[in-house]
Amino acid sequence: MINEEEVHCRVEWRVRVDNGLSEILVPEIGQFRQAWLWIISAILELKQKILKFLNKAWVVGLDDPRKFIHCIKVGTALTFVSLFYYMRPLYQGVGGNAMWAVLTVVVVFEFSVGATLYKSFNRATGTFLAGTAALGVHWVASQCGENFEPIILRTSIFLLAAAATFSRFIPTVKARFDYGAMIFILTFSLVSVSGYRVDDLFKMAHERLLTVLIGASMCILVSIIVCPVWAGQDLDLLITRNMEKLANSFDGCVSEYFKEDTSGIDNTEESGKKLQGYKCLLNSKASEESLANFARWEPNHGQFNFRHPWKQYLKVGASMRNCAYCIETLIGCINTEIQAPDFIKKHVSDACMRLSSHSSTVLKELAINIKTMKKSSTIDITIAEMYCAVVDLQNVLKSLPTQLSSPQLSVVEPPVNEKTNPISTMTIVPLVEVLSLVTVASLLIEITSRIEGVVNAVEELAGLADFKVADEIMKYSLDHQGHEV
Amino acid sequence: MINEEEVHCRVEWRVRVDNGLSEILVPEIGQFRQAWLWIISAILELKQKILKFLNKAWVVGLDDPRKFIHCIKVGTALTFVSLFYYMRPLYQGVGGNAMWAVLTVVVVFEFSVGATLYKSFNRATGTFLAGTAALGVHWVASQCGENFEPIILRTSIFLLAAAATFSRFIPTVKARFDYGAMIFILTFSLVSVSGYRVDDLFKMAHERLLTVLIGASMCILVSIIVCPVWAGQDLDLLITRNMEKLANSFDGCVSEYFKEDTSGIDNTEESGKKLQGYKCLLNSKASEESLANFARWEPNHGQFNFRHPWKQYLKVGASMRNCAYCIETLIGCINTEIQAPDFIKKHVSDACMRLSSHSSTVLKELAINIKTMKKSSTIDITIAEMYCAVVDLQNVLKSLPTQLSSPQLSVVEPPVNEKTNPISTMTIVPLVEVLSLVTVASLLIEITSRIEGVVNAVEELAGLADFKVADEIMKYSLDHQGHEV
Repeated sequence: MINEEEVHCRVEWRVRVDNGLSEILVPEIGQFRQAWLWIISAILELKQKILKFLNKAWVVGLDDPRKFIHCIKVGTALTFVSLFYYMRPLYQGVGGNAMWAVLTVVVVFEFSVGATLYKSFNRATGTFLAGTAALGVHWVASQCGENFEPIILRTSIFLLAAAATFSRFIPTVKARFDYGAMIFILTFSLVSVSGYRVDDLFKMAHERLLTVLIGASMCILVSIIVCPVWAGQDLDLLITRNMEKLANSFDGCVSEYFKEDTSGIDNTEESGKKLQGYKCLLNSKASEESLANFARWEPNHGQFNFRHPWKQYLKVGASMRNCAYCIETLIGCINTEIQAPDFIKKHVSDACMRLSSHSSTVLKELAINIKTMKKSSTIDITIAEMYCAVVDLQNVLKSLPTQLSSPQLSVVEPPVNEKTNPISTMTIVPLVEVLSLVTVASLLIEITSRIEGVVNAVEELAGLADFKVADEIMKYSLDHQGHEV
Repeated sequence: MINEEEVHCRVEWRVRVDNGLSEILVPEIGQFRQAWLWIISAILELKQKILKFLNKAWVVGLDDPRKFIHCIKVGTALTFVSLFYYMRPLYQGVGGNAMWAVLTVVVVFEFSVGATLYKSFNRATGTFLAGTAALGVHWVASQCGENFEPIILRTSIFLLAAAATFSRFIPTVKARFDYGAMIFILTFSLVSVSGYRVDDLFKMAHERLLTVLIGASMCILVSIIVCPVWAGQDLDLLITRNMEKLANSFDGCVSEYFKEDTSGIDNTEESGKKLQGYKCLLNSKASEESLANFARWEPNHGQFNFRHPWKQYLKVGASMRNCAYCIETLIGCINTEIQAPDFIKKHVSDACMRLSSHSSTVLKELAINIKTMKKSSTIDITIAEMYCAVVDLQNVLKSLPTQLSSPQLSVVEPPVNEKTNPISTMTIVPLVEVLSLVTVASLLIEITSRIEGVVNAVEELAGLADFKVADEIMKYSLDHQGHEV
């Protein structure tokens, strides 16, 4: 039996449209059902996105577990500082100004100790200076009578805010006191305008400074006591890791170029990753600078003193970047289509491989020197070996033309003072085929001369930071390192 | 007549010290006078430092007068917003919460419109979300009885602060909502802890949001109306200027290398500055990224739409940086001590100069295309000319070996199918002498292949941003440009 509804569903409605064809009209699904499907699919999509996002977040955390710890530290500091609200005796001490302690913790607590110290110092100093200035201006204004008071206050806000804003554009101020200048404007404006309404301005300014100090010291304490993250240590690690990456990239790309099957750079994941290591250096300037900026606020920690020459790390970083630019070009040149004939490549390969191996040993040894803050006794020998390798390569290049010729060149008149000496087994290779090989060799020499810059920068660092001469254990580990390479 | 004091001053006291020599003891000047001299010199030094600092600041301002205007804008916005304190009807509307408007102006007002919009949006959204969340948590807590209330509040602060802090480590959140996440923690903590003391929490949260909105809209209005600084325009300018600098550096260093007196790179200030232009590109990634980040918040302005493909500018920038790395290496190779003999240099120089000139014409034309957002009709021809120049250079290099030989190589057996063809005026040049020349030539070819990357990136940009084909006036200016190069 077929009921009426089913029949209704199966009926096809045809309409004759202008072009003479008939169209089938699909019966509408209930609007409610359509909306329901849409909502379901939207929820599923959202769920997918959220899961993807959480997964990404988890990877970020796993990559550097200190980030998880940092979050717990922020939470702890905030919970502590909010006690000022929950505990009656504390609240009575500072009253509504307790919010400045909370505000300070949220704004000042940064990932590294140095950044936290920088912001704390800037916030406290900015608040103090601005409070004092605002009280002074307020006193002057109150002496000038009621008519002039708001004019003086407003003009002072305008002028000081403009001046402080401008100071933030000056590079030296920006590097050290950017945040302080902002806090200065903030506090000055707040105290200044509040002064018009609040009676006991001095008490207010005093309480605000106090709460800011409480918040700031809470941040400093937590960030130093609980698993501290030192910007200085991070900078040291960044520089030494980058130096190792540079060494690996350099060594890797040269040995890839000269390896037997000459298929250019191979694409296995690990060796690819090793080769691409130098890319981290190309854009590391900004992070190096900010770390160095924060590191100079940090007290003694680990092997670093308060006055550790962090600026010299920037010079080391810059000299390494110089090498990285050259390696970038080298990798570009390696990938050219025209490859030199194998027998010529073999002729040069030994010298090139030796040079790259010695150069990367120098870099790795420098990295160990910086890491341990000790000057290894073998470094001078390693550097000398690198220079010898350069001379060797140059000699090999000098001997190369005997194997070069061109189809057009057949007989050459002998130089007057030399005897005629026929070479009958000469293979003819046009220059254009050895172009990439010659370029690679001369880039290798250029990179070595840039590594010299790294050596000089590290030596300067050793002088400034007073590196000790390494003991026997150190030498052993260096020998071991040498064998690995 | 000589008075006693003068005699006293002239007496020399000598003391015989251990090593047998006598030392002169200088008579003490009065302590007061010494202190006075010290103070005077300190004041003079301070004055010198302040003058130097002011001079530096002035230069910063002259360099970009928009910075002066920005300071005036900040001052104006602050003065306006402080009216909430000075005018009774306004103050009665929002009361003490007026400080949030002041705070917002200080913190949110940035140099470019995009940055101001980014911060305003983040601050308003963060405040709204956090306020809502805090009210919700507060309602839940109040339902759970007095004992549990502080526990729930404190736990929620800890958890949400930790979660929001962690979200700031995730790159996608960091790029767009870093500031919003901070404001979320801030507002949530403040509303949450205040809830324990303030009775009408809803009114407080509402007033705070209102004042934040007032402050933010004040900033947006002032920053858009008074001499707006558009991050998008700045990014466009940065990219096109860098492209021109790249072209000039490339052209400049090649013509310096091949110029007649062959003294390497000359050191006159202007040509030196032109040559060093590429250095701006090496570390421009950070500023390009932040400009692109802000630009996408900006509404239509000038020739740019709201949905202008700013991300593509980053790709163009990256491809230009690739060229810059190569030019950096090229300049290193140019400065080597061993220079090729003049007659060989001359042989190659024409082709090299033509290539660098065509390449830099391509770059300059691309820069004009981006600047005017029109695709010039001649660009394809210019690019084709560049490719022809590459082929020419390769041919010149192919012909080079006829002029290469070595002292050892004297007679070569002729290839079977060629007639013996004695060349009697052959000059003997070892490969090592033309090493730098060959390297320069092959780097030129490499740079050209990287300029191809720039061409592709700009073409993609032209497609995404819907560049129009240039009209006749445009063509004229391009022709003119072509003549200049």
